[in-house]
Order: sequence, then structure tokens, then C-alpha cells
Amino acid sequence: MAIIMGPNQYGKAENRVVRIFRDEPRHEIRDLNVSTSLRGPFDDAHTIGDQSMLLPTDTQKHMTFVHAKTKPGDSIEEYGLDLARHFVHDIEPVEGARIEIEEFAWDRAVIDGVEHDHTWTRRGPEIRTAAITVDSTGEYVIGGIKDLVLLKSTGSEFHGFLKDDFTTLPETTDRIMATSLVAKWRFSTTDVAWQEVYAQVKAIVIREFATLQSLALQQTLYYIGRAILEEVPDLVEVRLSAPNKHHFDYDLAQFGIENDKEVFIAADRPYGLIQATVIRDDAPDAGMAWVPSAGLA
Amino acid sequence: MAIIMGPNQYGKAENRVVRIFRDEPRHEIRDLNVSTSLRGPFDDAHTIGDQSMLLPTDTQKHMTFVHAKTKPGDSIEEYGLDLARHFVHDIEPVEGARIEIEEFAWDRAVIDGVEHDHTWTRRGPEIRTAAITVDSTGEYVIGGIKDLVLLKSTGSEFHGFLKDDFTTLPETTDRIMATSLVAKWRFSTTDVAWQEVYAQVKAIVIREFATLQSLALQQTLYYIGRAILEEVPDLVEVRLSAPNKHHFDYDLAQFGIENDKEVFIAADRPYGLIQATVIRDDAPDAGMAWVPSAGLA
Amino acid sequence: MAIIMGPNQYGKAENRVVRIFRDEPRHEIRDLNVSTSLRGPFDDAHTIGDQSMLLPTDTQKHMTFVHAKTKPGDSIEEYGLDLARHFVHDIEPVEGARIEIEEFAWDRAVIDGVEHDHTWTRRGPEIRTAAITVDSTGEYVIGGIKDLVLLKSTGSEFHGFLKDDFTTLPETTDRIMATSLVAKWRFSTTDVAWQEVYAQVKAIVIREFATLQSLALQQTLYYIGRAILEEVPDLVEVRLSAPNKHHFDYDLAQFGIENDKEVFIAADRPYGLIQATVIRDDAPDAGMAWVPSAGLA
Amino acid sequence: MAIIMGPNQYGKAENRVVRIFRDEPRHEIRDLNVSTSLRGPFDDAHTIGDQSMLLPTDTQKHMTFVHAKTKPGDSIEEYGLDLARHFVHDIEPVEGARIEIEEFAWDRAVIDGVEHDHTWTRRGPEIRTAAITVDSTGEYVIGGIKDLVLLKSTGSEFHGFLKDDFTTLPETTDRIMATSLVAKWRFSTTDVAWQEVYAQVKAIVIREFATLQSLALQQTLYYIGRAILEEVPDLVEVRLSAPNKHHFDYDLAQFGIENDKEVFIAADRPYGLIQATVIRDDAPDAGMAWVPSAGLA
Repeated sequence: MAIIMGPNQYGKAENRVVRIFRDEPRHEIRDLNVSTSLRGPFDDAHTIGDQSMLLPTDTQKHMTFVHAKTKPGDSIEEYGLDLARHFVHDIEPVEGARIEIEEFAWDRAVIDGVEHDHTWTRRGPEIRTAAITVDSTGEYVIGGIKDLVLLKSTGSEFHGFLKDDFTTLPETTDRIMATSLVAKWRFSTTDVAWQEVYAQVKAIVIREFATLQSLALQQTLYYIGRAILEEVPDLVEVRLSAPNKHHFDYDLAQFGIENDKEVFIAADRPYGLIQATVIRDDAPDAGMAWVPSAGLA
Repeated sequence: MAIIMGPNQYGKAENRVVRIFRDEPRHEIRDLNVSTSLRGPFDDAHTIGDQSMLLPTDTQKHMTFVHAKTKPGDSIEEYGLDLARHFVHDIEPVEGARIEIEEFAWDRAVIDGVEHDHTWTRRGPEIRTAAITVDSTGEYVIGGIKDLVLLKSTGSEFHGFLKDDFTTLPETTDRIMATSLVAKWRFSTTDVAWQEVYAQVKAIVIREFATLQSLALQQTLYYIGRAILEEVPDLVEVRLSAPNKHHFDYDLAQFGIENDKEVFIAADRPYGLIQATVIRDDAPDAGMAWVPSAGLA
Repeated sequence: MAIIMGPNQYGKAENRVVRIFRDEPRHEIRDLNVSTSLRGPFDDAHTIGDQSMLLPTDTQKHMTFVHAKTKPGDSIEEYGLDLARHFVHDIEPVEGARIEIEEFAWDRAVIDGVEHDHTWTRRGPEIRTAAITVDSTGEYVIGGIKDLVLLKSTGSEFHGFLKDDFTTLPETTDRIMATSLVAKWRFSTTDVAWQEVYAQVKAIVIREFATLQSLALQQTLYYIGRAILEEVPDLVEVRLSAPNKHHFDYDLAQFGIENDKEVFIAADRPYGLIQATVIRDDAPDAGMAWVPSAGLA
Repeated sequence: MAIIMGPNQYGKAENRVVRIFRDEPRHEIRDLNVSTSLRGPFDDAHTIGDQSMLLPTDTQKHMTFVHAKTKPGDSIEEYGLDLARHFVHDIEPVEGARIEIEEFAWDRAVIDGVEHDHTWTRRGPEIRTAAITVDSTGEYVIGGIKDLVLLKSTGSEFHGFLKDDFTTLPETTDRIMATSLVAKWRFSTTDVAWQEVYAQVKAIVIREFATLQSLALQQTLYYIGRAILEEVPDLVEVRLSAPNKHHFDYDLAQFGIENDKEVFIAADRPYGLIQATVIRDDAPDAGMAWVPSAGLA
């Protein structure tokens, strides 16, 4: 029996890169949280402390800022691709690079009906995400959104479920459905109108959530995933994770007061957690696209 | 020397009240975090464990939901006033009540250009706040906003400051100014168009932040406070707390790359913290308006 | 009517100062989060943007690190006092300074039964706190602890409380009591064995929480406060804030299973919040001791 | 081309189960955060909203509490195994179950040198974890610890690393090394002295971190992983994720003050992130052991 190194990677996490475009009087802002990870022949760094193959994480940090100036691209996907390519193509021992990016949205301030040139307010809570992997097998791009909090006050049912001796949940044909959605979508190409796709996918998510008379959060997730794949040709796989943010009817009847789905208590924990993958049956191999980390599941 | 009870209070914090108005096909949502505190002759509860004067916090919780049904009002200020009055007027020993409320904003979903009847997305990060106090001396209402994240990419200076032997900060006539503003405003009356005032104050805050050529964050806060008091007759005092969310120029010159206020690193800690009060010189006494808690400063 | 400046202050918040004492092979660590605030004649900075009276927050930051080297003292109270005195005595326009400090505890690593010279593990969740104010009226020191999470599985009752039409809470003579305590204690002098007092107060808090057969969280707080004042002569006032972290009996009877206070669900929100002040009747005036911020209550 | 369901799962996340053992005057406490996930033939729930195969998450919640009473076991691994077996063996359509558990540690209160029977203080920040998977291929157990914050003030070097045109990091033979470690270890059997193994692994982690003269955080991780596998026969794989919590020397030389690794500023973001797997070359197949979620990487 021998003890050996398994998968490993290292990088600089959460570089808070803010890029202002100020060539015109009307400035633009891009506000990012960028994490880098490199993969390659780094066993000796672990086993005997030989760092000669390791580009410091400090250098990786510098590059996230250097590229924000020299290769900002038009989208986080483009910026991330360029950054990953740099590490893999320009740094000799590096075999694979993964770049994960969060983009924070800003709304331009409107003063007396006029958009302001250089002032914004942060918009949330939803955050746009991207995860780019470049290695010897190819280039993989995953777009995404997280913390998109959605709620519908009707149009959601839950009944006909499996019951055992410990099942007490009442069936319902009208309940609140609320979630804080995480969605990720895999591209089959890097020749994409990235900004348009993001806006399109986000609109589909909200539309399907709103318009489906939902029989379960599972069904809502499937309809979201299917619609995205049907309408966006560049995408081949969608992964969705949705906490069921419970809103319980508050018992006012005990006080002789009617509560016809008007007053709810929003619960924190526990919460349902529903996760689904929707995929084209001809999707190309995902390679390392979904692997965020070699170290820990 | 004797040991005695000083100020004390108790209540139920963070009741997550969600109210849906569904009398019409187009539903409305109000999403609140409500905290109650009662003040009164509660010394015996502390010193000898006699609870006969104590209305349980569980009952206070019930009331936040009961009122959401029976007395929702048109605004959090109105709802909070009714709740505070209930405790003080209807519960014999209670002498004072303080209600603190956070309201989370939701944007109605827009599907193919049409507003949806019963689906929303959460809007943030800013949160509307209110703090209502009712006691024997009167009724006090404080409106507010918090987590309003603002950034301007130019139009901010900082120079001419005091220097000692440990001052190394360079002077600047052009920097990013960013903050996550907390603002609270005290009303002189309870006869107020609450919703209109909130929208008006928020617009003033953004306008002043954007349009002042700022010599310091202190000046920006003062201009915000002054404009609010000048333009909103129902208000007599404004308190502002503003972290200076530093955005440092990233040093690209060390790599031979120009960085003319284009690439910044957003810092977490430490941060400047600027706090200011702007007040009318004829403001009525604030009483307990600003006292959130008897217990801990 | 005129609009004027009210109370204001500014400073550098959350300086993460880590001090290693390494003169001996056995190192010592002090791990702090230090916030400074200065008060004085700063109206012009606000009203006309004149910074000539303002020592930059960047300089305040430097001083938290400089003093960590030159005047670390033996405790956070001593370090904070020296820092506050520096700002008030050495910087001409400054009239008052407030230093707030959090200290994170570290346990020395023990390897095969032997304490290690230079390795530690972080201990939490409780955090030691101090708040020091120096101004023309004197010097004020408040010690404290926060996030001290305590639980007792019996020895807590709650009954005999006030009931109205909305009271449904059952009375109980045996329940779990749990809290995440914040306690602050005001000193009457600055000639104190700071480290000893902290250890002594913490022990009293835990002892009173454990040994009192509690009739309400209010009573527990009072007993804690009274015992501290009786046993620690340097202290004149104690403020306590205690969330009632509810642990609800889980209803297993619905499944025919007995649950005699063995299985609980720990709730997040809402929670009771109990706050109390215990004070000597001859306590000197608190001055600005409890004022954390001029700006916002 | 067709659109199909890929991997999916659902469950109840973050059940806050508190179990008191009170048969003896000296009570015991177990404080858990339990998440369940079920896998199986759930496609119809997604595609046509047919819930007949779905055991509600509400029922899963009940079971986490029922088992806390009826099958608590002696460790979280044992409790989690029984819970997973219940879902897979007793609920007809369920094919696989994953149970993830966090355990919060409590220290028994010591009053005047004597351990108290029913009072504790929470100990942190480190949290014990377990992840149990039961499916048709077998039973898999992963133990772990997270948020274990470690710091050594010397005995850490970093030099000899790869340099490109953007590398500015100075080499060092003496720096602070600090991390907030996440470690997970895979068992090859379910016949384990779970409590003893946890204590043993935690001691090894601290010992290796402390005693290795580290040439890089990578080397420290490898030494930790190797020592665990060498000393604990029941384990076959260790995964480690370690942020490099940077402590930068504060520049006091600019003020003429020496700072010989005594005063540091602890940085928040960005941070290095080092991840490594150490494994026996004869480790059995991991199956679904490391798959936390079907939905999202």
C-alpha cells in the first residue's frame, strides 16, 4: 500500500476587481469577484515542498487586475476565457485553469428623470456567475445566476405525494412558492453573444416560474430547464438548485380571525432543497466543466 | 450602596411577517421583519421572578401577525404605530412600546412586457426601515433606509486634511466614492403621506450623492441631510452613517501598464466610518425616539 | 428655522491588528479588531468641505498598528486607553476619542500533552470586547463579552405571566434555556487588573446562568448583573442583552413516541430579546461611556 | 435531439436537531444540523408533476427528529447511517439517500472547579461534519471538520517558486501561516470507533500543522493527509481545503519603527486557496461518497 497525491489545485480566491470605463463622459462600471485555480504537475510542491512549478497566488491576483485593464472583454465569460487561456498557454507547467466569477449589478442613478453619467446604486440580491475551464481537452464555459429570489402568491400546488406512517403534511392546491434560485447553464461553444444570452435566460427563468401552474417545485425546475434548452441553441445543459423557502399560513383561526392565504410566517430553517439537471441527449462531454475543486466535494 | 434595576425592556425580535393582498386578481405583497419591545414596571420580573406584569413575547409575536391581517395600514409606519398603540393602550401595565420594522422590496415580474399578477422578484440590497415609539410622552416615528449601496466613479475629492507624523495618505482631486448608506429621519407628526415621503427621501439621497462635487464624505452626508430637511416639511432630524468603502487604485505601473483610475481593488476592512446628524434648530424633543434598547449601547 | 449640524464623529472601523510577541521561544498572540472614532470641531468639514481639522482615517489606521508595537499594554482596555489618549492629547483639534475593540481568543496547541511554542487554534464563538472613551470630562472604560452561547437543559421555568385574549403560550416548570449573551460592564476607575476582572466576570456569568433555578430570563440577567456588581468592586454598571434562543419540544406524540424533554428543534427567528441594566445606586455619571456613535441610534 | 432529465435529488436541509440525554442527573447534549437528500425514480415529478414517488421533505424532517429519539447512536456517523438506511430500506421507491450533518460542540460548564450537570457553553468555531451515502452499491461514510482555524507565528517558509513578468511576491523563510481548514476523510468500513477516530484525526491535523517546518501550505496539507492515512487504518482518502489567510507585515519602517514580524494586518480578501487530495493507492471505489448534490457543481 502506498499513499499518493490525488487531484489538487490552488489559486487566489475572491479578487474584488472593479473596472471603470471612463473614455466617455458617461462612465461604465464592471464589479467583479474573481477566483482563479490552476491545475498541473504540482505533486512535488506537496510531497517535498518544491515550489518551482508553482506560480504564486499573488501573481494570479495581479493578472486578474492586469486583464481587467488590458483584456476586459464585453462580458465575464469573455474576460474569464482570456484569463484562463493566459494561465494555460503562457505559464509553462500549468495544464488547466479554472476561473470563477461573480458579477454584481449596478443600476445607473436617475436624477429628475435623467440617467447620471457616473453614479450607480447596487442592485441585488441576484448575482451573475460564470465558471470557465481551459485545459488540454478544450474550453468549457458555464454561465449562471444565483440568489435570484422569486415568489408567487398563488399558482402552486402540492398533493398526491407518497405517504408513510410519518407523513402529516396536508395536501394543498394553493400555496405560496418561493425560492432563492441557483441556475447554471453549460455552453457548447465559445462563440456566443454572452450578454444577450444572460438576459434571455434570466427572462425565461422568471417567465416559467410565473406562468406554470406548478404541481411541485420539481416541475417548475424542469420547465425552466427545458425552456432554456429549447430557446437558447448555444446551451446543452442546465443545473438548478432551489431551496423551498417555506411560507406557513399563520394560525389566526385560534383567535377567531379568518386567514385565507393572506398572512404567512416566512421560515428560515429547515427548508426543502430541490436539485435537478436538464440536459440535451446529444450534449457533448462536460469534461472538467462542472468540477469546481479537486479537493473537496 | 444598593444595587438596583436600570432601564430594561423585552420583546419578540424578527417576526418574519408576509402579507398577501389577494382581493383582486392582481395580488400585492408586503414582506416584513418586525421586532417588538415593551417597557414598563417589570422590575419584579427581574428581581424576584414575578411574571405577572409580563405579556409573553409569544403573545407579542401573535400580534404582529394578527395586525398584519386586521390593521395592515398602507405603510410600515402606519402598521407600526397601530401595533405600538395596541400594546400601550390595551395591555394594562405596558408604559411604552417600540416597534422596529424592516421592509424587503419586491419587483413585480414582467413577462413579455406585461406585469404579472402574482409573481415577484426580490429587490435589494437596500431595505426600508421604521422605528416607532409610543409612550406616555407621545408618539415618535423614525423612517429610514439601510444597505443602500452607492458609488460614483468621479466627482469626489479629498485633500487639505490635517497631517501629523503618521499621515501618509496622498491628497486627491478625483477618486471613487462608495458607501453602504444607513439613513434615518425623524418625523414631527404622524399625519404623513408615508409612502410618498419614503420615495421622496430616497430620491434626494441619490441626487445629492450624485450631483455634489464632494470634498469629503462628511460634506456629502451634510448635503443629503440638509436637502431632506429643506424639501420634506414633516421631517426635523436626519441621522446618517456611511462606511467609506475604499476602492484603491491597483498598481499596474509596476508592470508598465497605465492605470488612469480605471482598475481598482475594492477593500473589505478596515473602512472609514462617517456619522453625522443634521437637525432643524426648532426640532421638538426627541424623547425616546432614538432609543432602540434600554439595555446595551 | 435653521438647519444645523448635530452630533457627528468619524474614524476607521475594523482594523484587523494581529500582534505576535516573539522575544522568547514561546510566542504570544493578540488578535484584535480595532475601531476608532474621533469627535471635535468638525462642522466645517461637513458644511463647507474644509478638512483642515480632520486627521484622515488612514492615519488613525496607522496608529492602531503603531501602538500595537509601541504600546500594546497587557490588555485591550490598556491598549485602547493609550490609543484614545493619543488622539485626544496629541492631535490638537480632537476633543474626544472612542476606541472599540474585539479580541479573538486563541488556545495554544497541545501536541502529545505539551503546549506548543508558536501554534494556536481559534477559540470561539465568544468574543471579548472593550469600549474606551476619553474626552474633556474624563476617561471611561467598558469591558464586555459577546456571542457567549449558553444552554441549560433544565432548571428554567416560565409561568404566572400576564395573559390576554391572544396568549396561547403554555406555562412550564421545566424548559431549555439558551442564549447568546452580550454583556458589558462599566468600570469606575482605570486602575484595574484588567485580565483578572475579565476572567472573574466571565466565570460569574456562567455560574449564575447555571445555578439559578430561573423563573425567567429576566431573572437570570438580574442575578448575573447583581453578582458581578457585588463581587467586582471596580464595576458600577452592567448591561445585558440576551436573545431567548427557543428550543421547542418536537411533537413525537403524533407518532406514538414519548418525548419527555429529550428532542427539540432549535428555532432561528423570531426569538425573544431580553435586555436589562443593573447598576449601583451610587454609580458615577456615565458621561459618553455608552455612546457608540453620534450618528445613529 | 431530445431534452431529458439528468441527475436530481431532493430533501430537507438544515434540520436543527437538539437531543438531550437526561436519564441520569448528569445530562448530555447533542446539537446537530441535519440535511437529507433522496435519490430515485423521480423523473415524473419533474416532467409531469406526478408526486406519487415523492416522500415529502416534511416527512424527512420528522424522521431526523424521530431518529434523534429512537436511534441516536453514539456518533453522528452512526445516527446518519441509520437515517440513510431507513430511507433506502423502508421507503419503496427510494434508491439512494445522503445525510449530511454538522455537529456543534459544547463544553460542560465548570463552576468552582466542578463540572455542572446540565449547563454548557458553545465551543467553536470548528464544526464536526459527516456525510453518509447509502445506495444499491453500498454504504459510504465521510467524516470531517470545518472552520478549524489554525495559526503558527513561525515555522513557515515560501520561496523558490515560479516567476513570470508579473511576479512581485518576495521570498520568505519566516512568515505567519494561518488557515481555516476544511478536512474530510473517507472510511473503508462502517465498523468504526467513530468518536475515537474523530479525536485522533483532529489531533493529527493540529500536530502536523504545528510541527512541520512548512515550505508551502501545499506541503502542510500533504503531511496532514499522509499522517492521517498512516495512523488511522479505517481511512483511505483525505480531502483538504485551506484558505491561506494572509497576515501581511505592517509597514512601520516608514515611521522609523522596527517591525520584526511582530505587527501584522490580517487580510480578508483575496486569499490563497489550496486544495489537495491524499489517497491510498488501494482505496476502494468511492462510488457516490463525494457527491453532495446531483444538481449543481
